[in-house]
Amino acid sequence: MVVRKVNEVKLEKMDMSGAKNVELQWLVDKTVGAQTFAMRRFIIKPNGHTPLHSHPWEHENYVLEGKGIVRIGDREFELTKDMVVFVPPDTLHQYKNTGEDDFILLCMIPLID
Amino acid sequence: MVVRKVNEVKLEKMDMSGAKNVELQWLVDKTVGAQTFAMRRFIIKPNGHTPLHSHPWEHENYVLEGKGIVRIGDREFELTKDMVVFVPPDTLHQYKNTGEDDFILLCMIPLID
Repeated sequence: MVVRKVNEVKLEKMDMSGAKNVELQWLVDKTVGAQTFAMRRFIIKPNGHTPLHSHPWEHENYVLEGKGIVRIGDREFELTKDMVVFVPPDTLHQYKNTGEDDFILLCMIPLID
Repeated sequence: MVVRKVNEVKLEKMDMSGAKNVELQWLVDKTVGAQTFAMRRFIIKPNGHTPLHSHPWEHENYVLEGKGIVRIGDREFELTKDMVVFVPPDTLHQYKNTGEDDFILLCMIPLID
């Protein structure tokens, strides 16, 4: 069981080639008992972006704050608060902050053994 | 692929014994290609609550707006914006609005065939 505020969760730098000015928090993961999927929170700072990459698992996103874009395949979409994204497996994708404040979104992924 | 605003997603009444003044939206589910887990958004109106029940799958929650409580087993916890909950499988749980505005939270669950 977990009940906690997001500011109690450790903030990590996204240390991945192609990532710039991105921090993340693992809000729910295997360490607290999750078996099927994990909930992460991404904080993309102004001028920041995640890597343009693909992987064999899907993303489910909910935009919490700020303004940005998501690239999915060859298309780009503007994102603002209270928008929902589903990125299918094996699809090139990238999130970028296009605003002046932090761009914050949840990113859920399956837990793969 | 899905990119959409939450207000574009159909709002359904939670039609379940023990539920009161609860609406929900299936933001990401099998109909859009999700295979592993689904993202729902619950809108619990003032004086509303979900059923007190348990089931063999877990919940992962993120509180978006308002004020409420979650009961997990024999314990109750206050919830406000930007709080995270993990309810393990087979654990009695219930969400209640204790404020004067809507209590809104995301609720992710595994997709079980």
